[in-house]
Amino acid sequence: MKIGIAGYGNLGRGVELAVKANPDTELAAVFTRRNPDAVKIQTPNVPVASLSDVEKWIDRIDVMILCGGSATDLPMQTPQLAKMFNVVDSFDTHAKIPEHFANVDAAAKSSNHVAIISAGWDPGLFSLARAYGNAILPGGRDYTFWGKGVSQGHSDAIRRIKGVKNAKQYTVPIDAALDAVRSGSNPELTTRQKHLRECYVVLEKSADAAEIEREIKTMPNYFADYDTTVNFISEEELIKNHGGLAHGGFVIRTGKTGTDHKHVVEFNLKLDSNPEFTANVLVACARAVNRFSAEGKSGCMTLLDIPPAYLSPLSNADLRKMLL
Amino acid sequence: MKIGIAGYGNLGRGVELAVKANPDTELAAVFTRRNPDAVKIQTPNVPVASLSDVEKWIDRIDVMILCGGSATDLPMQTPQLAKMFNVVDSFDTHAKIPEHFANVDAAAKSSNHVAIISAGWDPGLFSLARAYGNAILPGGRDYTFWGKGVSQGHSDAIRRIKGVKNAKQYTVPIDAALDAVRSGSNPELTTRQKHLRECYVVLEKSADAAEIEREIKTMPNYFADYDTTVNFISEEELIKNHGGLAHGGFVIRTGKTGTDHKHVVEFNLKLDSNPEFTANVLVACARAVNRFSAEGKSGCMTLLDIPPAYLSPLSNADLRKMLL
Repeated sequence: MKIGIAGYGNLGRGVELAVKANPDTELAAVFTRRNPDAVKIQTPNVPVASLSDVEKWIDRIDVMILCGGSATDLPMQTPQLAKMFNVVDSFDTHAKIPEHFANVDAAAKSSNHVAIISAGWDPGLFSLARAYGNAILPGGRDYTFWGKGVSQGHSDAIRRIKGVKNAKQYTVPIDAALDAVRSGSNPELTTRQKHLRECYVVLEKSADAAEIEREIKTMPNYFADYDTTVNFISEEELIKNHGGLAHGGFVIRTGKTGTDHKHVVEFNLKLDSNPEFTANVLVACARAVNRFSAEGKSGCMTLLDIPPAYLSPLSNADLRKMLL
Repeated sequence: MKIGIAGYGNLGRGVELAVKANPDTELAAVFTRRNPDAVKIQTPNVPVASLSDVEKWIDRIDVMILCGGSATDLPMQTPQLAKMFNVVDSFDTHAKIPEHFANVDAAAKSSNHVAIISAGWDPGLFSLARAYGNAILPGGRDYTFWGKGVSQGHSDAIRRIKGVKNAKQYTVPIDAALDAVRSGSNPELTTRQKHLRECYVVLEKSADAAEIEREIKTMPNYFADYDTTVNFISEEELIKNHGGLAHGGFVIRTGKTGTDHKHVVEFNLKLDSNPEFTANVLVACARAVNRFSAEGKSGCMTLLDIPPAYLSPLSNADLRKMLL
């Protein structure tokens, strides 16, 4: 299975590693909007090409994995590339998934390609946990917790404050809330009870720390509804101790059967590298795309539409024997 | 969707409750090998019929859910009933799944029916967790822990000892082993390190407790490789404190990406009632069977072959909007 990577940031580099780890996949080319000569990849003898030349590769790539951002890249790129290739993306703006799905579906169907969107862990594996949980425990409740991990959006919000030089914000699930959910008591939890927000902030010279702390803690939507801690540190410390890409989280479905039998279904992830793990999900989805395409299917799908066996390199008989 | 229940023990009663909890399902009839007049069910105005008359119901049932045992009932019943109905079973003898699959597949294909076998939580949801984990973290390791819950096979083994009147055996996962796995250190664990065996035993009058304890603890395959505790209790205490059907367990996949980024993917269940939870999985699978049948598919499948969306009463568009 020949894989193309469109976009070579953290996620693109993760896909490159994932392709190396899966013997049934092979990297055909990396595509970039930058000057290709300036992009150095890790795999020897694989070309880096300009994204504007991508149509020249139509017959040489089985699945194109899109590694751009959800804000501006993927809404344009996924429909465009789905006209030329089978594609996989990790579009993660939950509220805009129906619109993105419709655009990609139209493009893929018009050109007889298969697309999987919103692959990763949330949306992705967490969506699967929610879908299985809902189907199996009707009338129950879902709880999703994120972290501990860096929220890019919240870090950006802090960096936009005047006097802030740099910042990282961790979303931290609160153990007491997790324990209450796991007890099966179906608690009603406020935003404040579910997650803490931990901020590490580097100030510009002569910035007013107290005022910036107040601005962060009262920022509507981002921080006002949470218990937030603000730690002022040096730029060196930020780079040294807060450069990691770890993340994770929990999806818990609770429900009852019969008169009062409680059930708790939990799925959780602890990831040292968010982009590298997401990349592995994308490559497993590329396998499913390739299979659907070989069957003559076309159009857009998500992980909710994929038989789990399609993600595996094993045959159905081996899966039944070894993993069922 | 009209559901038939074949076999009315704990699991059959659980399916009856699950049908009640799912508005898109309706109980058509319960089938029993016993005298139907002697079987009292919980749902008013639903007939109990003899399993030997089941063919009279061919046009009145969309999916038959088989609730017999894996040792002797299902290997015969599932292929037989798959010739007349779409079927779902919870066959759980892991080593014999390939054989059972082949038999059911032949029967279902010959009569144009759809069958899902080995639905439940292990095999079932745990198989899904293993399959997703393997596809996403190649080169990693799987760990499955069961419990705390009663093992029927181990309880039976104790009851066969001379001088034992009654017994219950709990399989208990060892926290230290779970913690070691969750750390991502990929530990090599012996049988003894993973699970404890806790036995509650009622003696016949004049039985030799010390000798029976020795017999249990040294029983090959069942107990010799484990740390086993034996508690002698009264029959009243056994009935009062050890009559529950709670169970659960953990599937953990660990693996690395890149140079040394560890990832831990965990799925766990805590169930107050093993049969009622299993029943809910069977009913969700009945929904998938009905959809495959409407598409004109036939043959045998397992949860590994089912797009998750097929298990849900929601439309694909609603699933994407609400759960993705």
